[in-house]
Amino acid sequence: MTIRKQRLFTPGPTALHPSVQEAVAKPIVHHRTEEFREVFRQCGEGLKKFLKTRDDVLILACSGTGAMEAALVNVLSPGDAMMALVAGAFGERWADLGRAHGMGVRTLTAGWGEAVTPERVAEALDRDPRIRCVFVQHSESSTGARHDIEGLARVTRQRPDTLLVVDAISGAGAMPLETAAWGVDVVVTGSQKALALPPGLAFVCLNARAWERASAANAPRFYFDLRRERKAQGGGESAFTPAISLVVALRAALAFVDELGGVEALVANAGTLAAMTRAAAAALGLPLVAPKDHGDALTALYPPAGFDSGAIVKGLKAEFGSTVAGGQGSLKGKILRIAHLGYYDATDILGLLATLEVVLRRLGHAFPPGAGVAAAEARYLERNPAP
Amino acid sequence: MTIRKQRLFTPGPTALHPSVQEAVAKPIVHHRTEEFREVFRQCGEGLKKFLKTRDDVLILACSGTGAMEAALVNVLSPGDAMMALVAGAFGERWADLGRAHGMGVRTLTAGWGEAVTPERVAEALDRDPRIRCVFVQHSESSTGARHDIEGLARVTRQRPDTLLVVDAISGAGAMPLETAAWGVDVVVTGSQKALALPPGLAFVCLNARAWERASAANAPRFYFDLRRERKAQGGGESAFTPAISLVVALRAALAFVDELGGVEALVANAGTLAAMTRAAAAALGLPLVAPKDHGDALTALYPPAGFDSGAIVKGLKAEFGSTVAGGQGSLKGKILRIAHLGYYDATDILGLLATLEVVLRRLGHAFPPGAGVAAAEARYLERNPAP
Repeated sequence: MTIRKQRLFTPGPTALHPSVQEAVAKPIVHHRTEEFREVFRQCGEGLKKFLKTRDDVLILACSGTGAMEAALVNVLSPGDAMMALVAGAFGERWADLGRAHGMGVRTLTAGWGEAVTPERVAEALDRDPRIRCVFVQHSESSTGARHDIEGLARVTRQRPDTLLVVDAISGAGAMPLETAAWGVDVVVTGSQKALALPPGLAFVCLNARAWERASAANAPRFYFDLRRERKAQGGGESAFTPAISLVVALRAALAFVDELGGVEALVANAGTLAAMTRAAAAALGLPLVAPKDHGDALTALYPPAGFDSGAIVKGLKAEFGSTVAGGQGSLKGKILRIAHLGYYDATDILGLLATLEVVLRRLGHAFPPGAGVAAAEARYLERNPAP
Repeated sequence: MTIRKQRLFTPGPTALHPSVQEAVAKPIVHHRTEEFREVFRQCGEGLKKFLKTRDDVLILACSGTGAMEAALVNVLSPGDAMMALVAGAFGERWADLGRAHGMGVRTLTAGWGEAVTPERVAEALDRDPRIRCVFVQHSESSTGARHDIEGLARVTRQRPDTLLVVDAISGAGAMPLETAAWGVDVVVTGSQKALALPPGLAFVCLNARAWERASAANAPRFYFDLRRERKAQGGGESAFTPAISLVVALRAALAFVDELGGVEALVANAGTLAAMTRAAAAALGLPLVAPKDHGDALTALYPPAGFDSGAIVKGLKAEFGSTVAGGQGSLKGKILRIAHLGYYDATDILGLLATLEVVLRRLGHAFPPGAGVAAAEARYLERNPAP
């Protein structure tokens, strides 16, 4: 047997940063102490920089879906009309959450791999002005497509009664997101993505417009009552027991982002890896799932014509220990997805692309040897003219 | 700034195995306990399998050089004639050690990048039968050359008064070494090499012939008196305080080797990575320092004609966070050295070779894009016909 290091190239969980690994392994501290309150406050400040906002970013002990639910139940009351932009599996989740809470759910769909345009949203809101909230994904992880959050916010911020709630779970830190400047009302993100932490924490940020709505919304909620959290977290504590070790690790992750040069540097890094991967895919004949609306958090690829994506995913794992994601929902078994968000560097992606070439060759796919890696190297050099 | 993971591709220290990292981080245990004695005994058994011997392998708290010195002072008495085979910087170390202890040092040299042949050693021993010991490197880390230990042992084991002492510090676990079957009298190795541990432990193994010599040798020694160590370690303890955490980690490292399929699997792994690197070097026009006598523990390469090896080493570190070694001694500033021994896999070396292509291109070296990686992939497939 040869050595096969286990590497995750999945759009969450992503590779842990070493300082995060060290932090989670530290002895536990108690959360009702000044020591921990200081950590908690530093995390709150760091998250504001990460999401480009001056509004409070609340830290929750739950998965990203929990924070999506928290966002929804704090800005809507049962029976309210809402619109979910559905361009993949995660768009459907917004609609499912709304239905579970008795909301009047409308959907605006796009083909998988495409995005719902701001123009279509504007028209839909004009037709149905009762819609109190638009829900969307920044990065639709099932297809790799990106929604134009800046354009969507331009539509919603003209409408006093319509909020924009953005699931930026896999988007934040991988693509530009100017929460305050664009006028996004609610942003949700999670720990196991660009921040290179284990799962277990999620973050939610409401602007003034959204907090006003939250004070009047009457959807039943207790653990996810953000009014209570906001009050507690203003004093450096969470309302309920926080995931202490993960919060300590979050401080380390935010320090890593700072050292790198801030969230813009993290975004540029993912952008480079995504561009390299798209270049390799073109050279190797693997079509993009989202050719027009692709984002940079991950790249979703169809296999070469006549080949099975499952065999590629399995080959990378079995022969090289590298885990890339398969498809979800209607794309299950049809694609592979390679993540770029978080703690990955050029060497990581070049190594993965070279092993992808080996796997494709074993399966009988013909291409000029080294073509994918050569294309990725060339794209890297284009994006980094100086070393 | 983009993300640059720090990666070591040096022939020691090498990348730590994750189970080693976990083990060294555990709370300390006391060494005069049954709990630790059991760990120590398991390590001793594992090291016998690692070095292919049934003789005791002693565990010392020192660097590899310390164990080289221990070997020398236990088999020679001041004034004894010894022969150091000098094919690089580490061969010179054997001679230096001998001189420091007042031995009558003869050297048999080979050009850097070459090996001293068994035939030459046989002739030299015939000319000077007073030589009581031949000292040699399994892998000469300064050039990447390999000595024919099997052939050398065939020469020495016919001579009752001449021992063979092998520095297998970077060779063991990277290239075949049949200590008992070949009749090697003394073997020395270290922790920070193929075993994927931090530095701090070294190992030395004497066969019956060498122990007989040790009982009569009168070079001054205390810490490195292996007679004392042998007695103590037979009971599961070291004579002096052991490097406890490293011993606990050694057990984890030996378990990793077992799970991989034993030392043969580890050797095959290094062999594959070395073959891939040599193929890439040929495709990219980087001449081998040891074209004829190359080993698999590391690959030493000259830069392409007209290029500066230092700029390549610096470029890999500055732009990609990867550390390869430069030259030592007479090759200082003239070569680069890429390690294969220990915890490295195909993805590691393919990633490194792709970034080497980027660095060479930046420096103005012309080659077909992706040629090095393509050659490495092809060699990988040759050596692994089935996945």
